[in-house]
Amino acid sequence: MKKDDCIFCKIAAGEIPSNTIYEDSEFRVILDLGPASTGHALILPKNHYDDVCTLDRDLAAKVLPLAARIGEAMKKSLGCTGFNLVQNNGRSAGQTVFHFHVHVIPRYEDGPDMVSWTPGKPTAEEMAQTAEKIRSALV
Amino acid sequence: MKKDDCIFCKIAAGEIPSNTIYEDSEFRVILDLGPASTGHALILPKNHYDDVCTLDRDLAAKVLPLAARIGEAMKKSLGCTGFNLVQNNGRSAGQTVFHFHVHVIPRYEDGPDMVSWTPGKPTAEEMAQTAEKIRSALV
Repeated sequence: MKKDDCIFCKIAAGEIPSNTIYEDSEFRVILDLGPASTGHALILPKNHYDDVCTLDRDLAAKVLPLAARIGEAMKKSLGCTGFNLVQNNGRSAGQTVFHFHVHVIPRYEDGPDMVSWTPGKPTAEEMAQTAEKIRSALV
Repeated sequence: MKKDDCIFCKIAAGEIPSNTIYEDSEFRVILDLGPASTGHALILPKNHYDDVCTLDRDLAAKVLPLAARIGEAMKKSLGCTGFNLVQNNGRSAGQTVFHFHVHVIPRYEDGPDMVSWTPGKPTAEEMAQTAEKIRSALV
């Protein structure tokens, strides 16, 4: 259930100290050591899963309700007016620790943006083809 | 359950056409019209909720398992090697449509980054104080 060489397994188990803001039998929520903004937190399951694709289904069901509670607490306590949930899967997506985690990032009125992209302009036909590809692969 | 002036309510209900890649009684998943990358999708509940804080708890439990299925289908069908889940709450967090939605963004080996930040360097004392504030507000 735990992976020997995984730093997030050790942090979630309490073997490495962290600024823990929430803990139950299945999750530990800690402050990120290199925060995007004050209060930036990480939701970690105590058991090891590489990413959302391999995450236990029952555990996956608990993540978003927990994230909402954390975000609400941030708004009450830190003066942020919003928050982002960010969850990266795969090296190409910017995942650097291969233990499933969700970033909860408080956002302040004067803060810089950290989630942005340049919108593409696919044609209607390209969009329809892409949609059909994904639909066909959905199980 | 639906909100009259909400464009995502109309899209989720099928009143405005979309490139739908998945639909069930509670959710519709569509392609984003201004995609960050080919296949960029949005998970929309059919009922209206402003954000994750107001999202029905039972519905919230279904979002991450669905997102994992969508991401897996993207990896099988589009040649992406990873994906980001991004969910914005509040104007300061970049939310522009106030109907809860999750971005599922396929990532390709040669693609640009769209989720990044400059890590802050809070002191240990600042971290401990921030953690205590959030813990105290958590219900």
